[in-house]
Amino acid sequence: MPAYKKTARQEQLGNTQIRIPARNGDITIGAGNCTIIAGPCSVESRDKYLEVAMLIKDMGVDILRGGAYKPRTSPYSFAGLEEEGLKILAEARDLTGLPVVTEVMDPRELDKVTYYCDMIQIGSRNMQNFALLKEVGRAQKPVVLKRGLAATVEEWLLACEYILNAGNEKVILCERGIRTFEKMMRNTVDIAAVALVKELSHLPVLVDPSHGTGIRSLVAPVSRAAIAAGADGLMIEVHQNPDQALSDGEQSLTPEMFSSLAKDIRKIEQLKVS
Amino acid sequence: MPAYKKTARQEQLGNTQIRIPARNGDITIGAGNCTIIAGPCSVESRDKYLEVAMLIKDMGVDILRGGAYKPRTSPYSFAGLEEEGLKILAEARDLTGLPVVTEVMDPRELDKVTYYCDMIQIGSRNMQNFALLKEVGRAQKPVVLKRGLAATVEEWLLACEYILNAGNEKVILCERGIRTFEKMMRNTVDIAAVALVKELSHLPVLVDPSHGTGIRSLVAPVSRAAIAAGADGLMIEVHQNPDQALSDGEQSLTPEMFSSLAKDIRKIEQLKVS
Amino acid sequence: MPAYKKTARQEQLGNTQIRIPARNGDITIGAGNCTIIAGPCSVESRDKYLEVAMLIKDMGVDILRGGAYKPRTSPYSFAGLEEEGLKILAEARDLTGLPVVTEVMDPRELDKVTYYCDMIQIGSRNMQNFALLKEVGRAQKPVVLKRGLAATVEEWLLACEYILNAGNEKVILCERGIRTFEKMMRNTVDIAAVALVKELSHLPVLVDPSHGTGIRSLVAPVSRAAIAAGADGLMIEVHQNPDQALSDGEQSLTPEMFSSLAKDIRKIEQLKVS
Amino acid sequence: MPAYKKTARQEQLGNTQIRIPARNGDITIGAGNCTIIAGPCSVESRDKYLEVAMLIKDMGVDILRGGAYKPRTSPYSFAGLEEEGLKILAEARDLTGLPVVTEVMDPRELDKVTYYCDMIQIGSRNMQNFALLKEVGRAQKPVVLKRGLAATVEEWLLACEYILNAGNEKVILCERGIRTFEKMMRNTVDIAAVALVKELSHLPVLVDPSHGTGIRSLVAPVSRAAIAAGADGLMIEVHQNPDQALSDGEQSLTPEMFSSLAKDIRKIEQLKVS
Repeated sequence: MPAYKKTARQEQLGNTQIRIPARNGDITIGAGNCTIIAGPCSVESRDKYLEVAMLIKDMGVDILRGGAYKPRTSPYSFAGLEEEGLKILAEARDLTGLPVVTEVMDPRELDKVTYYCDMIQIGSRNMQNFALLKEVGRAQKPVVLKRGLAATVEEWLLACEYILNAGNEKVILCERGIRTFEKMMRNTVDIAAVALVKELSHLPVLVDPSHGTGIRSLVAPVSRAAIAAGADGLMIEVHQNPDQALSDGEQSLTPEMFSSLAKDIRKIEQLKVS
Repeated sequence: MPAYKKTARQEQLGNTQIRIPARNGDITIGAGNCTIIAGPCSVESRDKYLEVAMLIKDMGVDILRGGAYKPRTSPYSFAGLEEEGLKILAEARDLTGLPVVTEVMDPRELDKVTYYCDMIQIGSRNMQNFALLKEVGRAQKPVVLKRGLAATVEEWLLACEYILNAGNEKVILCERGIRTFEKMMRNTVDIAAVALVKELSHLPVLVDPSHGTGIRSLVAPVSRAAIAAGADGLMIEVHQNPDQALSDGEQSLTPEMFSSLAKDIRKIEQLKVS
Repeated sequence: MPAYKKTARQEQLGNTQIRIPARNGDITIGAGNCTIIAGPCSVESRDKYLEVAMLIKDMGVDILRGGAYKPRTSPYSFAGLEEEGLKILAEARDLTGLPVVTEVMDPRELDKVTYYCDMIQIGSRNMQNFALLKEVGRAQKPVVLKRGLAATVEEWLLACEYILNAGNEKVILCERGIRTFEKMMRNTVDIAAVALVKELSHLPVLVDPSHGTGIRSLVAPVSRAAIAAGADGLMIEVHQNPDQALSDGEQSLTPEMFSSLAKDIRKIEQLKVS
Repeated sequence: MPAYKKTARQEQLGNTQIRIPARNGDITIGAGNCTIIAGPCSVESRDKYLEVAMLIKDMGVDILRGGAYKPRTSPYSFAGLEEEGLKILAEARDLTGLPVVTEVMDPRELDKVTYYCDMIQIGSRNMQNFALLKEVGRAQKPVVLKRGLAATVEEWLLACEYILNAGNEKVILCERGIRTFEKMMRNTVDIAAVALVKELSHLPVLVDPSHGTGIRSLVAPVSRAAIAAGADGLMIEVHQNPDQALSDGEQSLTPEMFSSLAKDIRKIEQLKVS
């Protein structure tokens, strides 16, 4: 038995499926399908967020994303609209019928985030923020746990174990690229880790090709690869005007690019082998 | 124009296709298909090599692989049968009608390798062995250039440029995993680099999921991912009895596993999107 | 002007010196001397902590360390005595006359930590826990900011900038090894980063050779190297019985080893070559 | 017993000392002293090389360095004067009375290199060029074996074992920085590896702070750190006019900077602790 107990494949028969209630129809993650989470990096303004949400809502997206609290390397960068951003996310949910997910960085903000949103995200910088992990472990909402920039697969599963051990079993892992020596891309997507984690754990695994590569043109091929490797879904940045995005513009798809990718994904999904 | 000139996408219209003559029908790499190279890590003996070659020859393999000169971390490990191994490879070609590829490590052995084999491989440890690169640049046979363990994409393309600049334009790149902090897998397959190199260069790109992961059960999902990301082929280790292999047993597929994977690959290949 | 403004060397003439009041005589970090912080990884019990504190107090230690809140990879590992541990640290200060430093992981615990201790530590896993950085930026006590496992020098200085920008200028950087492919050691001490950060910033820089190497026998040579490279101090794990330590035993020095190292350090310190 | 046998500390009592005959007095590496190897990256022309050799010959240098065969990432970069460069090195030896060391990249050039030079260098890109390692193992001259960019300490010692096992016991290891995610410096000097290798092996260990950092101002602090950590010597790039160097100018010291550093080194050397 590995050090991560509740997270381990041996813990149960079959894969964990996580259901997220939604007006348009509940979303299930981990049922052999491909869940597509999409939206802009940050909620930049009410108008812009609602606009992109409406643009993509019928393009195959299952869950809307958008950052209200943004972890930024520099204290002088745009760090999100905070509670105002959460309210916009809730409004987008009402408008589109789709559930919304956003990142939480501070245990003191968790109640607000769970009040407004349907799913919580722990970002890669906080993968070993154990105070935060324990706190989301007490929450009732599903949690997306991104892999840390330099986290081994074992550390990632143990971070997951913190959440399960605190009582929240609705955890979805997300591979978002690790830090290596390669300079042309923002990170290195560890595609084999997706298959490895599916072997080691019963939990669903997503891939974030946007942060994983940092390059718009690589989002589609890496998304296809993720599904082919067995990922349960994707987390993709989409912006109606990437060149004017306040963060991550160079890795965001336009709605048109996203629509085309989503169609490809649905084709590969049907083909699911072995 | 990037520093790698002849290797650059801008150098020509369309993708380079590389034809390898074979009795069973010529093999073309880079024509939108998926070329499958398979065989054991090392040529361990005449009997064992011919046996596995016959076992897999009708399972979808396009080119047979096998090491005659093996780069081994320790001077006390089995380092291949050398010229004897080359002769066995040639015999396997005659027997199966399939072309054969093997690694060359020393410029002084190149003539022998090109005499017996149809395609030459430069291993990851020798990606920046410039004396060897220049020498294979003067050879008439196609060259598979594996990415170095810690080579950036740019360094890899520049290593390629050494071969093209010396006169040999039949170069196939091969991503085989880079070295990172992750400990559970032998290397980290850089799947996005496959798509990136296809953008930057007109040359075909393969993926080696066997060295890339070092774990048998990950070979199939990573192979599927490679094709979905746009790779032009795969290089897969197959051994009739992996547990008794003299090298790389834990990452070798059995012929049965290989047969099943090759079928999956052909399905994904047909689906090729965009 | 770099992106880190207040942290930048250009911001002021000369180096920042940070004074920590203490009954035995105030400690100044960054005045060309070598400040030695030592003690066990965790405060394991009152008896054991006070014992080791008394054992090392006259061996050249300037500041006592000990973890009350321990970041542990697994939720099932010993995670510290929490507030009870803080009280023991305060008692050790009263007993020895030396200031004490401990790690804080949760913004909600900061008040308690600053109440009991003289200096706050942000661990490597929390280097980009921006909520915590902003909170310690509002505290009145000096802060040791450890470099993240995979943080570039620029990211480290920008994390530092979060604290300075929030109002706390008493920040000491601490290089504690980065994560690389090397497996024999726990981390790779980036010795050149010490000199580089001294060029780029006016703030003092420490080195933690215990976490940096994970190997007891390497603590002394790396400590000497750190001082020779220009570090302003060291953070060293010492345990009266390393083999029975609840955490990090294999990298802890015995008091005797520490005493011998401290003497060497004082010799190199005198020699300081610009 | 580790996998590297002849290289292992257990193989003999005491440290290996390697003597290099020279007109000015033989040089011994590994006798508790600090051997300083210095000179420009490349032999650029007869005039320039002899000029810098004369400039630095009385500044504390023990052995002159200079590249005749240069491993260059791009095939379009200056790759050295080849045999012409070897002749210039030999002339510099005659002029200064100091021994000379240069890199060999191709087994076919080894005889020429050993004919003209006193010590052979295997560069980091060729650390696992096993054909070359076996060939220098048959040579009579001492060999400096640089650590590969992504080589673990164990792989480095096993590469060394290739040379010893082929019959040449005069091997000096050289740490020159490993490749990591850090971008500000060319490489990351693994200072702890110096101490670790001194524990694991009886062979001498040098440090190359020029390639290790890629930044001129970091060469002095890293050199001091290397000696303090127990290194047996340094390999330093010096150029009379770094801004006009054909390679590695930004990491080369001027003769004046080198002279000042060499004096510091001699001070730390005398102090050698433990």
